[in-house]
Amino acid sequence: MKIALLFGGISYEHEISIVSSIALKDVLKYEKIYIFCDEKREFYLIDEKSMKSKTFSSYEYKKFPKLNLKSGGFYQKSLLGEKKTEFDLLLNVIHGADGEDGKIASMLDFFRVDYIGPGIEASVIGFNKLFTKLYAEQRGIKTLEYEVLRRGEYKSSFDFPIIVKPLRLGSSIGVSIVRKAEDLEYALDVAYEFDEEVLIEPFIEGVKEYNLAGCKAEDFVFSIVEEPKKEEFLDFEKKYLDFSRTQRVSKANIDKDKENALKEAFKKIYSNLFEGALIRCDFFMIEDEIFLNEINTVPGSYANYLFDDFNDVIQKLSSSLPSKKEIRIDYRYINSIQKAKGK
Amino acid sequence: MKIALLFGGISYEHEISIVSSIALKDVLKYEKIYIFCDEKREFYLIDEKSMKSKTFSSYEYKKFPKLNLKSGGFYQKSLLGEKKTEFDLLLNVIHGADGEDGKIASMLDFFRVDYIGPGIEASVIGFNKLFTKLYAEQRGIKTLEYEVLRRGEYKSSFDFPIIVKPLRLGSSIGVSIVRKAEDLEYALDVAYEFDEEVLIEPFIEGVKEYNLAGCKAEDFVFSIVEEPKKEEFLDFEKKYLDFSRTQRVSKANIDKDKENALKEAFKKIYSNLFEGALIRCDFFMIEDEIFLNEINTVPGSYANYLFDDFNDVIQKLSSSLPSKKEIRIDYRYINSIQKAKGK
Repeated sequence: MKIALLFGGISYEHEISIVSSIALKDVLKYEKIYIFCDEKREFYLIDEKSMKSKTFSSYEYKKFPKLNLKSGGFYQKSLLGEKKTEFDLLLNVIHGADGEDGKIASMLDFFRVDYIGPGIEASVIGFNKLFTKLYAEQRGIKTLEYEVLRRGEYKSSFDFPIIVKPLRLGSSIGVSIVRKAEDLEYALDVAYEFDEEVLIEPFIEGVKEYNLAGCKAEDFVFSIVEEPKKEEFLDFEKKYLDFSRTQRVSKANIDKDKENALKEAFKKIYSNLFEGALIRCDFFMIEDEIFLNEINTVPGSYANYLFDDFNDVIQKLSSSLPSKKEIRIDYRYINSIQKAKGK
Repeated sequence: MKIALLFGGISYEHEISIVSSIALKDVLKYEKIYIFCDEKREFYLIDEKSMKSKTFSSYEYKKFPKLNLKSGGFYQKSLLGEKKTEFDLLLNVIHGADGEDGKIASMLDFFRVDYIGPGIEASVIGFNKLFTKLYAEQRGIKTLEYEVLRRGEYKSSFDFPIIVKPLRLGSSIGVSIVRKAEDLEYALDVAYEFDEEVLIEPFIEGVKEYNLAGCKAEDFVFSIVEEPKKEEFLDFEKKYLDFSRTQRVSKANIDKDKENALKEAFKKIYSNLFEGALIRCDFFMIEDEIFLNEINTVPGSYANYLFDDFNDVIQKLSSSLPSKKEIRIDYRYINSIQKAKGK
């Protein structure tokens, strides 16, 4: 199996995506090629030995061959026209905008490239924290109460402390905990830097947080349950380092019943919207009740460090990708109408 | 203003999109060019005088120049390399899959082409009838009670009659009214032909239905309220003919209060998810209460026949398209980490 890692993209997590792909270079044992999407949304085919952060921060990547995405795949100009870049499967490693907001899924679907990653609907539901809540509640999984404010709005009806988040970002960017009314405006302004809309939730001191990654191949494959260590919550720089993780972390200390309850909640969320993706669900547990906090549809370095045998998970998932419905265009109606009109 | 009409796409409504664009050719007074997306998802630049259904059903369109969509727009190969196809604004006239499911919006956003049409989130919410309901309820607009079944499921808990719809299609394709239990399996099988998931709602005999199209430019611009004539509901062939409509229809006979109530409901739905799009909301009115039935994010021939001055609406909308957030990629984190590592 030859895997194309697609990374970069225009998002606040562009650099995280680079770090994440470099981590996967060592973890994934399959043959790999590397497709970088730069700040102009141009694609480059990067040599494996140049897969280091400096290649990108120094703009050396521009020396590599450009690729065009069109019907059937990525093409490279050649003397005789163009040459298709061969691979069996693409792994979407673009975090945040582009990769997790539906754009990459759309383009790969449109141009018929097989990929591991969230589909269009899964992306939109996972990326927008309001939609995540509406979806989770419909699937029978609780989420915290919330308010959505729009740019220009500065009033919350919640008691403090609260947590303020841009509606559509991951990686803790633009997120603040607000403990007193006089700090709210500043926190909202920070969040409005990143999104027109902001989500407010109560902030629960010391809440138990559990992360569970997984996917559905023939059966569900789950990671260990991780209890993320945190100083209140991970800030961007800590998460950034976190994204390069390739070492196994230690299992959360919870009993089998709770672990199973988390897995059942994961299954309800996953089925079948997230088919073809390996996602990480971040849950809260409050008085033994499970709440979904967020869905990471392209988790940092694919949460490889949470799995016993990550390569096997990718292998299994790659043979269980959702089938695409074929629609035949046959001009039946136009032909029959033309016939009826005698044309 | 030079407008590019983008039409075709791989969907059950491919032919409807052709008919719709041909209708718009006569209605829109601006300079226009025509970009066709064929059954292989290849783009062709079609001459105005060839904008007739036969050009497509006979595959004559293949004689026209091919276009490549890439960073910045659509490009045509020329002797000296390639030439950008110039236009000010694209009008997304692809109905159903591709055009209304988020793919076209994604690609135009990705490659930075300005367009009138639903954005990615608006597409996904409008296209999936379950997501439409979750969203509408969150916005304070009622919808009918429902069940979602998946392929292989054949049991409904509703009393008959019910209406069975593929979860993700428009244009009445695959939709059946079921009056007795023994007809349910067949109706479901028909719907499962078009989607893995099926929506079931109670069918309300003689329910009042009102269609209202509009958009938000500086202010909201609304069409007249139409009360669609129907024999139960429009089947595909009738809707097909309907999509070529360019003549004004007559206004629904409702009082000012009800009309205003419909407009208020429309505003709640539209704001701000549907920014940049001209949509049609189809409502039910049951005992003076408004229910959202569905959202058409790319209505047939842009519902031009419902507006007093359609060209003016397009003009207004074109100057109120949502601004795209620019994200700067500056490699700040990678550089600071490299520095810290002494590299």
